[in-house]
Amino acid sequence: MISLDDAAEYLRRADDIVILSHQFPDGDTFGSAAALCMALQSMGKRAKTRCRHAVSAKYAFMFRGVKKQEFEPKTVVAVDVADIDLLGEPIREEYEGRVDLCIDHHAGNRTFAKYTYVDSTAAATTEIIYALITKLGAKITPEIASCLYTGVATDTGCFRFSNTTAATHRAAADLIEAGADVEMLNERLFESRSHARIIAERMALESLEFYYDDRCALICLTWDQIQAAGVAGAELEDLTSLPRTIERVEVGLTLRQQKDGSFKISVRTGHNTNACNIARRLGGGGHPRAAGCEISGNPDNAKHAILEE
Amino acid sequence: MISLDDAAEYLRRADDIVILSHQFPDGDTFGSAAALCMALQSMGKRAKTRCRHAVSAKYAFMFRGVKKQEFEPKTVVAVDVADIDLLGEPIREEYEGRVDLCIDHHAGNRTFAKYTYVDSTAAATTEIIYALITKLGAKITPEIASCLYTGVATDTGCFRFSNTTAATHRAAADLIEAGADVEMLNERLFESRSHARIIAERMALESLEFYYDDRCALICLTWDQIQAAGVAGAELEDLTSLPRTIERVEVGLTLRQQKDGSFKISVRTGHNTNACNIARRLGGGGHPRAAGCEISGNPDNAKHAILEE
Repeated sequence: MISLDDAAEYLRRADDIVILSHQFPDGDTFGSAAALCMALQSMGKRAKTRCRHAVSAKYAFMFRGVKKQEFEPKTVVAVDVADIDLLGEPIREEYEGRVDLCIDHHAGNRTFAKYTYVDSTAAATTEIIYALITKLGAKITPEIASCLYTGVATDTGCFRFSNTTAATHRAAADLIEAGADVEMLNERLFESRSHARIIAERMALESLEFYYDDRCALICLTWDQIQAAGVAGAELEDLTSLPRTIERVEVGLTLRQQKDGSFKISVRTGHNTNACNIARRLGGGGHPRAAGCEISGNPDNAKHAILEE
Repeated sequence: MISLDDAAEYLRRADDIVILSHQFPDGDTFGSAAALCMALQSMGKRAKTRCRHAVSAKYAFMFRGVKKQEFEPKTVVAVDVADIDLLGEPIREEYEGRVDLCIDHHAGNRTFAKYTYVDSTAAATTEIIYALITKLGAKITPEIASCLYTGVATDTGCFRFSNTTAATHRAAADLIEAGADVEMLNERLFESRSHARIIAERMALESLEFYYDDRCALICLTWDQIQAAGVAGAELEDLTSLPRTIERVEVGLTLRQQKDGSFKISVRTGHNTNACNIARRLGGGGHPRAAGCEISGNPDNAKHAILEE
């Protein structure tokens, strides 16, 4: 572990820098990489970003201000990467044992880099990158501010999640003043639902049932329904949080039939119920408020088994 | 128009204060009233709040720290009230010409009070009330901070809407430090959907249609469907923003049949289309991005007429 001042000093002396994001990239790892890359380039250094997965249309705007530079890296930096495995192959293999500096906000960071700076009180890694760029003396341009805001906003569910602190809001205030285009960003990041998402929600709401005096809400989707709607993994994954968001619901259950006929069950609970305990009794596991298990059999059997618990 | 210092000075000398909220109350008018009432009571004054509509379960927590005090008001204050008519009957009739001080953030405030303070750059009236209470020298207790945060968060759609400024985030940061319970508040305000809301969404998604290469999304609800679902005004009103939140949709239309058979049409548009122009050609009006009109006839005729435009 090093201090943020040390990290800034290290980067000030470095050049030919590649910045790595974790696989299945989100707004925070991409926002951190793009912002730091632009800042280093503005200091006259050569810098580029790399990620196991391509930049999706949603986040493409962040890389528009990054100059394309080709060079053999002398310095390897990882941002928002808690574990070397999260780089994904073949990036992990290429950089294992070669990461010089890791900047992260995950308390469980595995300190796989030569130098590591972790601030687990930061809601997003971009909160740290903002402080780092300021220490480097580089200008927070509107493009950089937009990248940093994106990380903060996406990792906090737009300032809703419990990781949001006073410092998070102060960083957002500074970034708005530095020119982050929040109207465009919030519309792009939070006000837009894909057609697939809308179709998945319609399907979920059509199957919604309530049990135990409305304290339990259940969505059950058969393989045929999922196929007919043509919705993919990510949209189905998002649905698992839906039942619990209904007023008075303490236990939200989502049953999704797999191709082999078995049911994948997601359990989401409020403060008073342990999701992991429910899932564990059916051979699954997870966290206290989010857990899962699998049950074979027909929809009625699967519903019956999980409702018993 | 007076300054905020003048408003503070006026309240410092006042006593036996009734604080009025607008009808169909939201988090901002209730948050302003409850916070100001608790602050004035903490200064040893008698104060109470009044509103045309009762406090709903969602906002009841804000009034738990307000002491019940009965007295004949000598001072009348309105918060977040842009027009005397927005008090609703019988409150309007009772206080017409008798409002001493109005604190508001609506640019179109009708200045119906003896003294008015409007800051239209504030995202919420609670942003102003926060500054006012600070000027009064009263302590921002955790209860007051929670009320003020509620107004800021609800009026900005949790920091998503374009009225959100750096000052809004700085106020939120201060209020979190003053003890606003943001985890509880965000869950209560934004992560909870009523049964009625879920039923209304299901009904809306079932009727959703796309036109013009998916650039236009349309929801059409007949009187019979609305009756069968048993959903009320507020839930239906919320649905009007739904079609525009779908990816690539520039024009979102919601048609709701009234008891008399005519259709109330809500038009919501993106940056490139003027909603008011569309509505005006059908005899309606509104704002550039949100407007409305009414059309009589059967569903197909109504759809046809608005899609023509």
